[in-house]
Amino acid sequence: MLRIGMLTSGGDCQALNAAMRGVAKALYEQAKDVEIYGFEDGYKGLIYGNYRKLSPEEFSGILTEGGTILGTSRQPFKLMRVPDENGLDKVEAMKKNYRKLKLECLVILGGNGTHKTANLLREEGLNIITLPKTIDNDIWGTDMTFGFQSAADIAAHAFDCIHTTAASHGRVFIVEVMGHKAGWLTLHAGIAGGADIILVPEIPYDVDKVVQAIEKRDKAGKRFTILAVAEGAISKEDAACSKKDREKKKKDSKYPSVSYELADQILKETGKEVRITVPGHMQRGGSPCPYDRVLATRLGSAAADLILKQQYGNMVGIVNGRIEPVPLKKAAGKLKMIDPDSSIIRETKAVGISFGD
Amino acid sequence: MLRIGMLTSGGDCQALNAAMRGVAKALYEQAKDVEIYGFEDGYKGLIYGNYRKLSPEEFSGILTEGGTILGTSRQPFKLMRVPDENGLDKVEAMKKNYRKLKLECLVILGGNGTHKTANLLREEGLNIITLPKTIDNDIWGTDMTFGFQSAADIAAHAFDCIHTTAASHGRVFIVEVMGHKAGWLTLHAGIAGGADIILVPEIPYDVDKVVQAIEKRDKAGKRFTILAVAEGAISKEDAACSKKDREKKKKDSKYPSVSYELADQILKETGKEVRITVPGHMQRGGSPCPYDRVLATRLGSAAADLILKQQYGNMVGIVNGRIEPVPLKKAAGKLKMIDPDSSIIRETKAVGISFGD
Amino acid sequence: MLRIGMLTSGGDCQALNAAMRGVAKALYEQAKDVEIYGFEDGYKGLIYGNYRKLSPEEFSGILTEGGTILGTSRQPFKLMRVPDENGLDKVEAMKKNYRKLKLECLVILGGNGTHKTANLLREEGLNIITLPKTIDNDIWGTDMTFGFQSAADIAAHAFDCIHTTAASHGRVFIVEVMGHKAGWLTLHAGIAGGADIILVPEIPYDVDKVVQAIEKRDKAGKRFTILAVAEGAISKEDAACSKKDREKKKKDSKYPSVSYELADQILKETGKEVRITVPGHMQRGGSPCPYDRVLATRLGSAAADLILKQQYGNMVGIVNGRIEPVPLKKAAGKLKMIDPDSSIIRETKAVGISFGD
Amino acid sequence: MLRIGMLTSGGDCQALNAAMRGVAKALYEQAKDVEIYGFEDGYKGLIYGNYRKLSPEEFSGILTEGGTILGTSRQPFKLMRVPDENGLDKVEAMKKNYRKLKLECLVILGGNGTHKTANLLREEGLNIITLPKTIDNDIWGTDMTFGFQSAADIAAHAFDCIHTTAASHGRVFIVEVMGHKAGWLTLHAGIAGGADIILVPEIPYDVDKVVQAIEKRDKAGKRFTILAVAEGAISKEDAACSKKDREKKKKDSKYPSVSYELADQILKETGKEVRITVPGHMQRGGSPCPYDRVLATRLGSAAADLILKQQYGNMVGIVNGRIEPVPLKKAAGKLKMIDPDSSIIRETKAVGISFGD
Repeated sequence: MLRIGMLTSGGDCQALNAAMRGVAKALYEQAKDVEIYGFEDGYKGLIYGNYRKLSPEEFSGILTEGGTILGTSRQPFKLMRVPDENGLDKVEAMKKNYRKLKLECLVILGGNGTHKTANLLREEGLNIITLPKTIDNDIWGTDMTFGFQSAADIAAHAFDCIHTTAASHGRVFIVEVMGHKAGWLTLHAGIAGGADIILVPEIPYDVDKVVQAIEKRDKAGKRFTILAVAEGAISKEDAACSKKDREKKKKDSKYPSVSYELADQILKETGKEVRITVPGHMQRGGSPCPYDRVLATRLGSAAADLILKQQYGNMVGIVNGRIEPVPLKKAAGKLKMIDPDSSIIRETKAVGISFGD
Repeated sequence: MLRIGMLTSGGDCQALNAAMRGVAKALYEQAKDVEIYGFEDGYKGLIYGNYRKLSPEEFSGILTEGGTILGTSRQPFKLMRVPDENGLDKVEAMKKNYRKLKLECLVILGGNGTHKTANLLREEGLNIITLPKTIDNDIWGTDMTFGFQSAADIAAHAFDCIHTTAASHGRVFIVEVMGHKAGWLTLHAGIAGGADIILVPEIPYDVDKVVQAIEKRDKAGKRFTILAVAEGAISKEDAACSKKDREKKKKDSKYPSVSYELADQILKETGKEVRITVPGHMQRGGSPCPYDRVLATRLGSAAADLILKQQYGNMVGIVNGRIEPVPLKKAAGKLKMIDPDSSIIRETKAVGISFGD
Repeated sequence: MLRIGMLTSGGDCQALNAAMRGVAKALYEQAKDVEIYGFEDGYKGLIYGNYRKLSPEEFSGILTEGGTILGTSRQPFKLMRVPDENGLDKVEAMKKNYRKLKLECLVILGGNGTHKTANLLREEGLNIITLPKTIDNDIWGTDMTFGFQSAADIAAHAFDCIHTTAASHGRVFIVEVMGHKAGWLTLHAGIAGGADIILVPEIPYDVDKVVQAIEKRDKAGKRFTILAVAEGAISKEDAACSKKDREKKKKDSKYPSVSYELADQILKETGKEVRITVPGHMQRGGSPCPYDRVLATRLGSAAADLILKQQYGNMVGIVNGRIEPVPLKKAAGKLKMIDPDSSIIRETKAVGISFGD
Repeated sequence: MLRIGMLTSGGDCQALNAAMRGVAKALYEQAKDVEIYGFEDGYKGLIYGNYRKLSPEEFSGILTEGGTILGTSRQPFKLMRVPDENGLDKVEAMKKNYRKLKLECLVILGGNGTHKTANLLREEGLNIITLPKTIDNDIWGTDMTFGFQSAADIAAHAFDCIHTTAASHGRVFIVEVMGHKAGWLTLHAGIAGGADIILVPEIPYDVDKVVQAIEKRDKAGKRFTILAVAEGAISKEDAACSKKDREKKKKDSKYPSVSYELADQILKETGKEVRITVPGHMQRGGSPCPYDRVLATRLGSAAADLILKQQYGNMVGIVNGRIEPVPLKKAAGKLKMIDPDSSIIRETKAVGISFGD
């Protein structure tokens, strides 16, 4: 009897179900007597013992479904070692539930925060395999995370729609793309969507340079300018502040996000009205794109293979096109950011896209 | 020689190009020696004489393209009789340009404001045919406007995406749908998107009823509630105020739109976090949906027929499935609103959707 | 206790689930103690007593799902009065199962064939309400059926894809659209897809006219011609034959469908290679479009209303924008075909689209 | 003055325009006095001197457009050294036109056949840069070609649609996916589309194994089976024949493609009706997906960089996530096929998908 636990944690994204289906189908196919237990709403389910035994049927037909059949929640890593309101030791509770169910391994699907807790559980002696999910593609150790391309498709569609209206009216448009720390989604959606200016957290922008880029287009006779702005885009000025000052400024700001502040600055400098579009949580939802379905299925299948070989303590990543195990120890806690000097940035600047730097 | 002018005015929407293509193809096909002049950026082009002769090739391949090849701008009706900054009499200028080009007829594509000016030009003696475009579907005299279904498709897609993420996290979500005066888009997108609560301008809401609807779902074990909120949704309280007080309140409000205020109220009453998604101008853009392409082509073809028959002074509408002329005199200046007692509202309430009333 | 039966019969289409959800939600919302029994795979389930009691949860989340949760099958009307291989009287069996379950009413979702059997059951004394589903939009008594617009969207998308490849290569393309008897789907998808020639069953075509239309485009310098051909498109020659001769010809033909024969004829006459695309069953599948979701929800809600008012023996249709009951007696057995002299055909011809007539 | 030629050859695919735009924008941005000449309809334009000077405006707004603004045609490599009907030496003609226009470099976008001729021109002394386009992803030397992911999206959508109808009716369905030599598209679309059986040219199938896979699903209570069949899928029996016998068999066959033959065999063995869907040329068309837009833009930008550095004789490929030059000498004439023992095949088999081997 092979007893496997499974949970999805953090913000949801597309292809979580596809990945779990991959693990499950590969286990049912290759091992005898497999039982899979799903913990509900992420680590919360593991802490408080909310789980259910999943039937093979539950994994059927979910390849194309967004969300997660297990539910998810955000459980900050930094609170994991802090007892809950009733004094419960969360880590001990998770270990207890793992053992109570006699699990051979726990499969955890999540992003950066999730991986830190997964690594903690590994350090505590549990057998852990993780799968890298996030629309941000910022997990160290894998070239690609599932969810990213689906989110890029949705964000790019927003640009496509905005394009026709921008061209008709002759305006400046901002599309605010998800991503507080890493700008991958903004970069890819921006290139794919034909954005003229792309602002990402890794490359602080200078408002004057942004304005110049808009005016350059004006002079070239273009009717409109479209900006792809990451939620975490930051001006050079703010980037130069201390973290404390930055947080204070944000708290006191009348702007719901950086896009609104930037819009006001552009209006002031150019006299041009700026329209802001915020696809927001749409970017996490809907049916995964075919790219993500293939990636998630392959990663899930490979995760099952690692379980059958008892190669625990790994995240399953894709590196140079090959699916391979990446030690959790190495991957957990590290972010993969855009390098401002990387070739993708050079290639993007070369076609005339401004990063405001 | 048949010389026709054409312009698109007001906010852009999908299928403007499809409609103009319909007019042009039908004229080129049926009349000899047709010349079509396109005025740029709406009435502005007619006022200031910015136009170009359009070639048949320019109408080729635009059936599926969003936006408008002529550009558009908003020119408020109430300013039409007011001279511009250089003292130019706009109405006279439009008449002059119409006559200078020896136009037989002017085809005007637009929404409610556009129709008022179109009717003014008719009263001034110009031959006018109009086509009803708007994502709001609020033009009196036609059962449907082109742009509406395309916008509904985009807004419904936002709901589809939000649905999976809402189900995974167990939250309250608001999708803010375009529509300041009429709620048709919110109503259709909300039904199509599986919204649980739909708030439209025509049916003022009671916050307590909204909260009750959320709590009712909670008790029924549903993890999430999704609200479709029109930009122009209004609380009963606000609806009872004078217009002046309402505008003052809006001006002083810290909320960018009604959705943000409502979100705060829901948080206060239920303790539930509310996420807001604003597809915004996306709803006007992108390729028209097949429904709109067919509608716009038919309306355009029928407009050409009216021109050939010299039946001017009409909007081309669709009434009970038939394309027919509607006197501009009757249609201009009237809005088509949702009747709170209509059967579509009854049918919608019957399936358990709350309007917060 | 209100006990309702439900079944879906005939070829499947989009929004069947949305319609059943509409019925169910409206019944659960408005009546006490409702039980809904679903018969599996259409009339087969009713004949052989294969059913299950459906829970409210089964109707949750299916608004956007293609197919039918009940399954379907084709059960030809003409065999209904013929005993099955074991001598079972099918009609009596259906009546028996209806009564065994003490049903108050049976809700039947289907197309033309389905409606004939539904009417037979009505004549036999059962309480019947039907909902008009078909991608063909050929049900008499309703302006629109659900499934049609979704299928049109898919077929139009095929044209959109073909367009770019046709323009690049300079070829003749045929897209074969579903529809053996009625050409509505081909007509709408063809107009929306920018087809140059549309061949529908209701307007027999002359190959020479088709060839002339292709050559006219050639002379006008167009690189390509795209034909929308209904499965049931028929040449004037064939239309003039007796039904018997036609069937013999079809049986002996080496062509899998009319498109292949036509392609050969075009090649012979013009020397142009013709590429054929057959989206086929794709046109029935996938998530219903927002238009169909709204229509199906409204029809379902209205069906529940008729049940609550015990107004049986009706199909729920949409006539001039209003949802209303249509006596089954009148609707069953009649097809709604394209009238070659109708305004939509005139409008379509006016923009230069050829019907080969 | 930098004078660049450009042509697109072979079957068209998505993102050709995006790639050319990438080259052009990067040249205009980085070099002074650039002139770009576009040859029409592939090598034909180069042979017969059909070209036009392209303006910067022609590259604007084409990022999202399918097809190619230059047109394309198939010009078989094996005929390049054979004079045309008028005795024209094609290779000399191409060299002459290249020199007449004083081109610094010729940018060629194409697939395998195109690359062979490109290499021939390189050997003849022309400066050549190529970009790997094909929906087949079978070009040696690059991990990915543009067009592939867009085609996979379209094919996967066909599976998504078929899925709901298959589930409703309980049938066997074949989706025939493009690809005569390489099975990448079928493999990816099949995994993404949830196919149960995937047949690719690289892994000859055994009909009995296919039938067993269908029957296994039957026994497991699944209502339907979906097969992804490449145009070039081949049975073990046929694979064992000589090429000559195979061609003879194909010529004499009554089946338009392998899918139809297989369908008949399945019907005979299982008694199950098989429905065939052929998305066909749809797979080459429509707007490129965001993934392809980014890839094509990056490749185009990198091609411009090679031109500016005069590093001719290269294809621009993507290898392990990095855009890099691949010597044409090495890449031309080699196909990249699926290795039946590769990890992607193992991962796919592990989740229970049969390759009929």
